[in-house]
Amino acid sequence: MSMYVVGHKIPDSDSICGAIALSYLKNQIGEPATPARLGDVSPETAFILEKFGFEAPEFKESYAGEDVYIVDHSELTQAPDDISEATIVGIVDHHKLGDLTTATPLECWIRPVGCSNTIIKMMYDFHNVEIPKNIAGIMMCAILSDTVIFKSPTCTTADIKCVEALAEIAGVEDFKALGMEMFKVKSAVEGTPVRDLVMRDFKDFNMNGSKVGIGQLEVIDLAVFDDIKADLEADIAAMKAEGERHTMMLLLTDIMKEGSEVLVISDNHSLTEQAYGKASVEGRVWLDGVLSRKKQVVPNLQKVFEA
Amino acid sequence: MSMYVVGHKIPDSDSICGAIALSYLKNQIGEPATPARLGDVSPETAFILEKFGFEAPEFKESYAGEDVYIVDHSELTQAPDDISEATIVGIVDHHKLGDLTTATPLECWIRPVGCSNTIIKMMYDFHNVEIPKNIAGIMMCAILSDTVIFKSPTCTTADIKCVEALAEIAGVEDFKALGMEMFKVKSAVEGTPVRDLVMRDFKDFNMNGSKVGIGQLEVIDLAVFDDIKADLEADIAAMKAEGERHTMMLLLTDIMKEGSEVLVISDNHSLTEQAYGKASVEGRVWLDGVLSRKKQVVPNLQKVFEA
Repeated sequence: MSMYVVGHKIPDSDSICGAIALSYLKNQIGEPATPARLGDVSPETAFILEKFGFEAPEFKESYAGEDVYIVDHSELTQAPDDISEATIVGIVDHHKLGDLTTATPLECWIRPVGCSNTIIKMMYDFHNVEIPKNIAGIMMCAILSDTVIFKSPTCTTADIKCVEALAEIAGVEDFKALGMEMFKVKSAVEGTPVRDLVMRDFKDFNMNGSKVGIGQLEVIDLAVFDDIKADLEADIAAMKAEGERHTMMLLLTDIMKEGSEVLVISDNHSLTEQAYGKASVEGRVWLDGVLSRKKQVVPNLQKVFEA
Repeated sequence: MSMYVVGHKIPDSDSICGAIALSYLKNQIGEPATPARLGDVSPETAFILEKFGFEAPEFKESYAGEDVYIVDHSELTQAPDDISEATIVGIVDHHKLGDLTTATPLECWIRPVGCSNTIIKMMYDFHNVEIPKNIAGIMMCAILSDTVIFKSPTCTTADIKCVEALAEIAGVEDFKALGMEMFKVKSAVEGTPVRDLVMRDFKDFNMNGSKVGIGQLEVIDLAVFDDIKADLEADIAAMKAEGERHTMMLLLTDIMKEGSEVLVISDNHSLTEQAYGKASVEGRVWLDGVLSRKKQVVPNLQKVFEA
């Protein structure tokens, strides 16, 4: 039976490039696989795919009756809506262990590294399958994106070594320059509807029963938000109400200054004080050194909800 | 920080040997680790440990504030009672994905193979660490136990290759003979209290909100149960009431005839009919070819509870 390989809702580059890279590997080892996606590709991902000559994977929302290999999460909220009617045959991920469960044994390649594609590279090595030049390119870009060109505290030596090896295969001499080019594409927010920006890299979390939505925009200069910050705030307030969320956060991350301005609206008015030791003022707070939603934002938040 | 490596409640040979083998590997790669256990070792496991010169790991029930590496399951019901106060740093397992979750990223080595020790061998290979002779011996025995000397439908070619490689390292020429010797130890039930037999390899499952307890005794001749079957039935009835369980099952598995007599007491009187197409008669049913709780008993049961 053929399987679909699919990342999370509102796919990022790791989800899309990972689905393509893992499908190729599975096909090489005699397990037919098709990459798929649960949403639109971001401008950053479109840039990567075009750079290395790939089309976006098939858009597919329903997986009832299918075999599915999950990329880049293990959370029900981030999975296809009908995942309970599918068979999860595997998970490759680098986040905390979520609430997906299965009725049958599966394979899980989960590692505390900076990017799922770093683990997919380990899978290629395990199966002794050569990585084609263009697939090495998209895997490398996904890692540079997830690790913010190695600046994120989620970045490990495994990620750095992996990028170096993939750059060699892809024939990319200056991968840091390519990374900056990619983040410039990501920083272009002008002309994009506010809701699209909030949703560009957005995840809902179930925190001890409360729904918490957290978006993140990584740019090379926060000045790009000067004219639209009030609109962004109005929109996360609207999303909080629409989704019956306890909390909505939008992280405006400056990858050069290495910190994030957090826009927050929550039923708990001292949430950032409790989670990060710094109160928000009129729904805004600068968190110095905070680049990673996964490692620096979510765990502290979770502790507040579980206290 | 040092970690504990611990298998499931009512540990089997895979849990105990896996904790020892994985702790040794972790120590070799600079991550201090101590093997532990959540319960008494079985006669089979005692035989293995003595054969290769090991003491049983430390008995330890409480893990609050500790780093824990979980072996052979991913289920809350099988984990230490205070696991929510510990940090799960990793999971090695070969079952369905259970309901354990974490607040932080971790490593999961989960594969659809016959035994956790087969995956631990992959971890040794990944880290390029040599397996000592005596550790190879206990890992090999754990795999022979879990795969019922390759007869179980859970057994994969990876398990067989792994046993062959470990036998070579351990210097064991006839591993099948050693496996039979081990199952003879396992078959000695005379003189053992009935409750100890029921609990020897027992797991509670949460099936769509219902608590289902399933024990298994693997022997080389079911005749050993002739005199005690009525006592076993009385005892599982008692355990059903004591534990407020929906269902109690005891699988009496004949590894030579390759099938299991199931003793069952359940709130659903047509449970085995619905799950396996064969009605129980006075709480007993013979399931031909059924050797594996994980692959042949649990999934069908789960479907009935989720229907």
